[in-house]
Amino acid sequence: MPELRKDPIIGRWVIISTERGKRPSYFGRTEKKTSPKACPFCPGNESATPSEVMAYRPGGSEPNRPGWTLRVVPNKYPALIIEGDLTREPHGIYDRMNGIGAHEVIIETAQHEHDMADLPLAQIKSVLWAYRERYLDLQRDHRFKYIMIFKNHGEAAGASVEHSHSQLIATPIIPKRVAEELVGAKKYYDYKERCIFCDIIRQEISDQNRVVSENDHFIAFEPYASRFPFETWLMPKAHIGNYVDTDIDMHDELASIMKDILSRLRVALADPSYNYIIHTAPVGDEYREFYHWHIEIIPKLTRVAGFEWGTGFYINPTRPEDAAKFLRELKLSGDTVPVR
Amino acid sequence: MPELRKDPIIGRWVIISTERGKRPSYFGRTEKKTSPKACPFCPGNESATPSEVMAYRPGGSEPNRPGWTLRVVPNKYPALIIEGDLTREPHGIYDRMNGIGAHEVIIETAQHEHDMADLPLAQIKSVLWAYRERYLDLQRDHRFKYIMIFKNHGEAAGASVEHSHSQLIATPIIPKRVAEELVGAKKYYDYKERCIFCDIIRQEISDQNRVVSENDHFIAFEPYASRFPFETWLMPKAHIGNYVDTDIDMHDELASIMKDILSRLRVALADPSYNYIIHTAPVGDEYREFYHWHIEIIPKLTRVAGFEWGTGFYINPTRPEDAAKFLRELKLSGDTVPVR
Repeated sequence: MPELRKDPIIGRWVIISTERGKRPSYFGRTEKKTSPKACPFCPGNESATPSEVMAYRPGGSEPNRPGWTLRVVPNKYPALIIEGDLTREPHGIYDRMNGIGAHEVIIETAQHEHDMADLPLAQIKSVLWAYRERYLDLQRDHRFKYIMIFKNHGEAAGASVEHSHSQLIATPIIPKRVAEELVGAKKYYDYKERCIFCDIIRQEISDQNRVVSENDHFIAFEPYASRFPFETWLMPKAHIGNYVDTDIDMHDELASIMKDILSRLRVALADPSYNYIIHTAPVGDEYREFYHWHIEIIPKLTRVAGFEWGTGFYINPTRPEDAAKFLRELKLSGDTVPVR
Repeated sequence: MPELRKDPIIGRWVIISTERGKRPSYFGRTEKKTSPKACPFCPGNESATPSEVMAYRPGGSEPNRPGWTLRVVPNKYPALIIEGDLTREPHGIYDRMNGIGAHEVIIETAQHEHDMADLPLAQIKSVLWAYRERYLDLQRDHRFKYIMIFKNHGEAAGASVEHSHSQLIATPIIPKRVAEELVGAKKYYDYKERCIFCDIIRQEISDQNRVVSENDHFIAFEPYASRFPFETWLMPKAHIGNYVDTDIDMHDELASIMKDILSRLRVALADPSYNYIIHTAPVGDEYREFYHWHIEIIPKLTRVAGFEWGTGFYINPTRPEDAAKFLRELKLSGDTVPVR
């Protein structure tokens, strides 16, 4: 059973998940390339994953059989497990909880060789819509305070299976970084009576020099205090606290700007490994006024910043204005959709 | 001129340092091995670094010439620069400061091929003593609020020169992670009238199962809420807020436990890349009561946790109790000093 443990000094919860436990000799080994035949996420290998939670099957094929275009399954090596009641208990001066939660995999395409940036717009839209469906389903489980969707692309970003996929983790606590954003955004809102993210968008539109791409509903920019070279944030221009409140009409533009940014990063940085994380309001209504959902995309370009793990102190060798200019001025080839 | 920029949402300062700036094509390239002949940190190549700040020269040789056993120099590619006055200014809704600070390199040995774990105890003691001397010198500069000493060992930990060295950064702000520790430790102190680190040490001594190594003055253990496999913390058993208050007599034991832990990690994990960071109280007297200096050692074993950069949410596949048992029970060969 996984366990949640709290750092008594700064209050950060950590998942100790020995389901994925490894002997010391495991560390350092690199993942080897899989062929579609051996890939647990390829059509025909449905039995290699736990039974599916949902799937898009345009031809109406049976569950856990080929014929799908997108498939959501529980993670075979979950960091948290879905069955059981939440118990909190002390251990001396420490605090622990049993590791209740959900850990799912969103298989984004049936095509083994396609990255997210390669997918047709309609398929990217399907992926983004599937995220919304999973949010809506899991937020009915009252044990969960937060649902986090993220993607690891490439080995340096932690992807252990190369077939394009995202992950979802539902947790009984709000992750520290999100909690900090909530505190900061609330403070600003209390003082200014405005959403801080809306004000950031106003500033970015006015400055223009950190903007990478925009369309009617969305803007992508390099944040003013970027931690990493080519860190890119994507936000709805209108105030929307929760991802699930982004309606179906907006998803065309969301898919389009996602493809545009991922294509730009791929061309600019020679197919970098990257993570993206959807930052959305926690489950519940009380955050919608002052929080504003967004996606943070972090290319993994440098290890120079190693010590930053331990300190929260970042040194970024690339001005966000320079990164934005570089990305903005890139000429993309014909198969990527231009965004104004 | 480097720049400090503040994230307006969570208040984190980031150093934007284009002195080290690189074109996108730079990223992804790996550092190549240097020979002692080409190594800027080897004796005979003193002119490859800026003029030294201090050095230990047992034979009394001249500055910036061979004959030293330890040498401290300004970083040739500094993230922050030492000359100038601090100015804070707004940029629209954002905040910035000019990048005033110090960035030094502590060259730990004249021997190109020796890692810290290889050094004789007396030399490790010299390194730890040199840290103290640099703290004492730099804390007289009133522009600096925090002085951070850390080490990157191995490419995966961000070391760009293989010759064994540590780094020092003095900053006009307190880094976020340290600030969080101060807040947490202060809260605990206000409530319990005891130092939280002292209570953690009591708990670890009572539980025993996360302890890796100890001697009269120091204890090393895997923290209860370890973020990473084999994360190891080292603390003085007595309450000492600031590293500089660790007297010369304790440095023998500090050197001995450092060598012991680094040797155990090296044997257990096949010479892993690692970072260590000295967490000490900020400049000033007001933190000494409730803060307690310590060293956090983080082996870089896995990239699986990639998304954690973005979320502050950690998944650790190894129970700290298992890591501690493994490290504790290792048989070290004769040239490493046993610690009881």
